[in-house]
Amino acid sequence: MQNLKSHKSFEGLTQFWEHESKSTKTKMKFSTFIPQGEVKGCLIWLSGLTCTDENFITKAGAQKRLSEKGLMVICPDTSPRGLNLPAEHEADDFGSGAGFYLNATTEGYKDHYRMFDYVTEELYALIQKEFKIAANKISISGHSMGGHGALVLGLTQPEKFRSVSAFSPIVHPTQAPWGQKAFTGYLGSDAAAWKKYDAVELLLAGKRHPNALLVDQGLKDPFFEKQLMTGHLTEACQQVGQKAQVHLREGYDHSYYFISTFIDAHIDFHAQALNA
Amino acid sequence: MQNLKSHKSFEGLTQFWEHESKSTKTKMKFSTFIPQGEVKGCLIWLSGLTCTDENFITKAGAQKRLSEKGLMVICPDTSPRGLNLPAEHEADDFGSGAGFYLNATTEGYKDHYRMFDYVTEELYALIQKEFKIAANKISISGHSMGGHGALVLGLTQPEKFRSVSAFSPIVHPTQAPWGQKAFTGYLGSDAAAWKKYDAVELLLAGKRHPNALLVDQGLKDPFFEKQLMTGHLTEACQQVGQKAQVHLREGYDHSYYFISTFIDAHIDFHAQALNA
Repeated sequence: MQNLKSHKSFEGLTQFWEHESKSTKTKMKFSTFIPQGEVKGCLIWLSGLTCTDENFITKAGAQKRLSEKGLMVICPDTSPRGLNLPAEHEADDFGSGAGFYLNATTEGYKDHYRMFDYVTEELYALIQKEFKIAANKISISGHSMGGHGALVLGLTQPEKFRSVSAFSPIVHPTQAPWGQKAFTGYLGSDAAAWKKYDAVELLLAGKRHPNALLVDQGLKDPFFEKQLMTGHLTEACQQVGQKAQVHLREGYDHSYYFISTFIDAHIDFHAQALNA
Repeated sequence: MQNLKSHKSFEGLTQFWEHESKSTKTKMKFSTFIPQGEVKGCLIWLSGLTCTDENFITKAGAQKRLSEKGLMVICPDTSPRGLNLPAEHEADDFGSGAGFYLNATTEGYKDHYRMFDYVTEELYALIQKEFKIAANKISISGHSMGGHGALVLGLTQPEKFRSVSAFSPIVHPTQAPWGQKAFTGYLGSDAAAWKKYDAVELLLAGKRHPNALLVDQGLKDPFFEKQLMTGHLTEACQQVGQKAQVHLREGYDHSYYFISTFIDAHIDFHAQALNA
């Protein structure tokens, strides 16, 4: 694990890292903020389409509250990099920058696009080993494609993540154009194989998280109706008895200006679950 | 004045604008954050080398405190754009992205690089006309080259700016490689003409601001000794009796991670001067 950059901020450190990943068989980058003093827990942040390990840590304005709560954050890149797979770099919503936090099964992609394993196994172990965080002190959040990732990982492995939140998540990707395109490319055309990476379908299939899910969604988000479909999550939670707080925010859009407005509330939510 | 983008944040609006500038005879861009409710004053933010109207508004994390204090911020671009003057696009520290907040006198540049007039006359009038801020409710701050700009504009026209602060300012540009290169290119080789754009020289020549100046400088800033020379400002202030609070911050560098750590204190400082 190689430190690329380090910046003191809020008495702690904002840092950028690179390491050799066994899951993706590529180098992977991630960023962290480590507060000064005792670190009481870790939030994993999963970013959205076209993002890298840099967006959240530069634009969300999260360091102040993380510092106050004694929480670290770790923000992995959104896909493997440095490859040249078929169609990998042709579009914003597939391939590089668009890993969708799943384990691909299609030719070429199955060897590298294993972001589900990367986050839930490799990064999860790294947080414990390199940053000395106990396994029961790790939570997860994310935005858009990363909100999808946070919900899917949290519902699939609730024992690993103490609390789960999301901004503007793709809650029902099997019904959304982004999800359908990505799942076809990564998982093949048999839609039955897609459901284990779909938060709404996971809930309907019996998956639960013991904590309430926290979701914020802007009502001026241009992707709200066609891609994100927040209402499907609300309905599924009500139907199956999954606790959830879903906030629909008048006038807010899909940007980091929206995230920065409500990130403190998400950090407080995770801090409470982590007893931080 | 054309609105390019608008994002709700902290119940206010983060916005991007473009207008035809009489000072630069080009289009100029700027960004703003306007809090919800009564707007009690305006902070002008001047950015540093290579920056645009976007850096501060996306990376400083200032919107929350501005919202709490009822202050707007306006962040102009750092130079005219869309021109093709000799050597204008060859280096990071001269020409585009490096206007140095002066009125150029050299051939070609004198027709467009008039950032001093642009900020103190044109943008200053626009703030009053378009955003309905009273002339006695305007303060100024900036970073690096923009910290230089804030100090120079504030000391030159103290009646226009209620309070002046800076992060990592180039306090003595006539003695710094960045300043010497830029001033030669914009003002010619007669160094006597440079002094009116140099904060330390302005103080020594009798310019004062009625309020204390506020400066934050990281001690791990790679430009601290050779380009910024904060100590020269402290000494000049002591020598001439200009009140100043100069904070040297152990471990902090030149980045927006540093700015974001201390921006709330600067906003509070300006809010107090503006009775906001």
